[in-house]
Amino acid sequence: MERITPRTFKGTRDLLPVDMIRREELFDYVRRVYRRYGFLPLETPAVEYLDVLLGKYGTEGEKLLYRLDYKGGHVLALRYDLTVPLARVVAQHADLPKPFKRYQMQPVWRADSPQLRQGRYREFYQCDADIVGEEDRIADAEILAVIAELVDGLGMGTFHVRVNHRKILEGMVAAAGLPADAGPAVLRAIDKIDKVGEKGIESELEREGVPTEARRVLLDLLQHPSGGAAEIESLRDRLPDQPAIAEGCADLLRIWSCLDALGSGLEPYQFRLGLARGLDYYTGAVYEAFTDALPHMGSLAGGGRYDGLIAIFSGQDVAAVGATVGMDRILTALDQLGLNPPRSSVTEVMVLQWGEGSEPAALAMTGRLRRAGISTEIGYRSGKLGKQIGGVSKRGIPLVLFQGPEEAERGEWSLKVLSSGEQHTVAERDVETVVRRQIEAIAAEGSAR
Amino acid sequence: MERITPRTFKGTRDLLPVDMIRREELFDYVRRVYRRYGFLPLETPAVEYLDVLLGKYGTEGEKLLYRLDYKGGHVLALRYDLTVPLARVVAQHADLPKPFKRYQMQPVWRADSPQLRQGRYREFYQCDADIVGEEDRIADAEILAVIAELVDGLGMGTFHVRVNHRKILEGMVAAAGLPADAGPAVLRAIDKIDKVGEKGIESELEREGVPTEARRVLLDLLQHPSGGAAEIESLRDRLPDQPAIAEGCADLLRIWSCLDALGSGLEPYQFRLGLARGLDYYTGAVYEAFTDALPHMGSLAGGGRYDGLIAIFSGQDVAAVGATVGMDRILTALDQLGLNPPRSSVTEVMVLQWGEGSEPAALAMTGRLRRAGISTEIGYRSGKLGKQIGGVSKRGIPLVLFQGPEEAERGEWSLKVLSSGEQHTVAERDVETVVRRQIEAIAAEGSAR
Repeated sequence: MERITPRTFKGTRDLLPVDMIRREELFDYVRRVYRRYGFLPLETPAVEYLDVLLGKYGTEGEKLLYRLDYKGGHVLALRYDLTVPLARVVAQHADLPKPFKRYQMQPVWRADSPQLRQGRYREFYQCDADIVGEEDRIADAEILAVIAELVDGLGMGTFHVRVNHRKILEGMVAAAGLPADAGPAVLRAIDKIDKVGEKGIESELEREGVPTEARRVLLDLLQHPSGGAAEIESLRDRLPDQPAIAEGCADLLRIWSCLDALGSGLEPYQFRLGLARGLDYYTGAVYEAFTDALPHMGSLAGGGRYDGLIAIFSGQDVAAVGATVGMDRILTALDQLGLNPPRSSVTEVMVLQWGEGSEPAALAMTGRLRRAGISTEIGYRSGKLGKQIGGVSKRGIPLVLFQGPEEAERGEWSLKVLSSGEQHTVAERDVETVVRRQIEAIAAEGSAR
Repeated sequence: MERITPRTFKGTRDLLPVDMIRREELFDYVRRVYRRYGFLPLETPAVEYLDVLLGKYGTEGEKLLYRLDYKGGHVLALRYDLTVPLARVVAQHADLPKPFKRYQMQPVWRADSPQLRQGRYREFYQCDADIVGEEDRIADAEILAVIAELVDGLGMGTFHVRVNHRKILEGMVAAAGLPADAGPAVLRAIDKIDKVGEKGIESELEREGVPTEARRVLLDLLQHPSGGAAEIESLRDRLPDQPAIAEGCADLLRIWSCLDALGSGLEPYQFRLGLARGLDYYTGAVYEAFTDALPHMGSLAGGGRYDGLIAIFSGQDVAAVGATVGMDRILTALDQLGLNPPRSSVTEVMVLQWGEGSEPAALAMTGRLRRAGISTEIGYRSGKLGKQIGGVSKRGIPLVLFQGPEEAERGEWSLKVLSSGEQHTVAERDVETVVRRQIEAIAAEGSAR
């Protein structure tokens, strides 16, 4: 038989147990936080009609979608994000109660060049939370609060959430005397502020054909101090003739007052004119969350209001606001900070066979421990105890249980704690209780560290 | 702007919250059981090279794989199952410690005609558990034990697991005087026994060109009583000259003794010659689990030993045994039995705004409850209380909290239990405690029913 070379497509990867165990923990954590805010789970198919998926992305999307060969044509493709499928779902299932708060944690696919060193893959998970059908900015505050709590609970220390508003950016373009259609180019330039600095923006704007005087106004406005409600108010008062600025500032002040009322503190939220956020479809507040522990790491989560998108499918405007959490980036950040270390096993105790004939007792003990809810493995073969324990230790299993011939006669078991080397003799009937107590002690030690 | 018709590709589906909430519970349950047996999580890419995926399926697979259009060619496709990816992973990551026990819960895609009424989709989840690298039949017993426990814990009442062995089927073909290459046709015929009965098998075998005398021998053997170790031994003693029968029976007796030692009882396990199990790649024991509550429902889980498969990638034989759990079928079965009813919300308490000006207090209470770990939503707009409560009730949220102007003055809240209509007055500082107590009472009532 011809051997097939085992390999994966570039930009995709196997998630082996050592990665998956901590990924599952992180996904569970995110799910718990979303649920605590009343978001409900949704899943949509990976395979959708091409015209549905292209709805939003237009010509750029053409290149980034993986098409399927179906009946000789290319009418199907793999989803590119979770926002377009949400928009389709809301239009297609018109009876979903509104406001519709949903979370969705599924892979997406992008046919671009993978940059594996920066953790950019062609197949990766998105974890989104959105609220559809609520215009009131209280919904923006909810999304901001949920991503702030999410990032806070990761245990990376202090963090901040940068907040801006598309109307304010629009007002800045108007204040600079530029036509509205210069907006996208200005946005793209501003979005690079952290990478290229003010000088870089100036030359970027020059390249885009923005006149000297307009550049001066824009750069002057970008000097406006970052901060909270006071800085939002002072911007509003600085440009009283720009209705878009007034509108954006009023929105942000409303969001700030909701966040204040929620009572988790306003410290993390930073109004900041230098935040634009790439995607075209935002119409209101936009935001991105960063950990202060890793100043050069990009945003861990981001989102905004996009009231126009659903109309592509429904024919009528439906308000929508949401955020996406970058799970791969969070895992990279946790790694760099030495948090959430890799774990190579979920097993709590390994029952070993010591010598011939010990299998029935080992199997019986394994069954008992599992029925007591303890994650248990059995060593499939007997062999030298020291060598077996070495193998168990390498796999990161904390406890080993075995029974020599004399112990068997006395109805006793030996329980070895691998981290300390301690060994306990336990009466047969007490094994579940003692094992559970040891697991709790090890967990307490781990969280005390 | 042109409106795009919102629609899904036939054979795929949206899983709305009402389905997803219980699906997530079922997936969590399966994950917990797998982990209790020491299985570790694995994920592999949806997109793989075509030759890798075709390794096992050959010409049949050609038709069932969805290919991707990539650089004008079709070298990529969507995975068809989780077994071939596992075989690839084991060959590609040779340093994975053996035995490698893994679970994997991911979607697969099949380009066949969907049969939506029978719950057969083109995109659906598989939930597999496998043990790679252990020849000893103790590993078969572990797989059988884990699927038995899984089905048992679903709360559908009694169940059974049918067990047979490919070597025994091989021995039956030999005993009937047929050449080994008649095996697949005989297997296909036997696999239909529950659908077509013995007469049906007889004509099926006749169509396949099996001579009269051979048919008589096969049908006679199929009369062999189903059961446990005694019936396995009597089959072995009945055909002492067939080495394949002897080998298969010895394997099954070994598995039975391991299951016995594990101590959960042998009642569910049924040795049964009429079980063949479709797939070509099995080499040893095969099994399928059924609920007795729905005799006409197909198997809820199934699997077997497939020692040859991994060699396609590794060039050397690697022992492997595993099972797959049919999540969609289990959900259908739970539905038919009225278990695991649909739930339209995960929210435990809804805080309502009663009258203008109540928003800040409602937001503050929402923040407090969430920080106490209680899943809480806030009604975004104020409005008539009765109408608001009606909406909450429809959404399946059990508790409502609100504060009228007089209560606000007294520092009190009203907590309404929607199932009973009871209403409690709660002091501001006690709200978390009382809400938690009510949630526990409702949960206890639910599980008592």
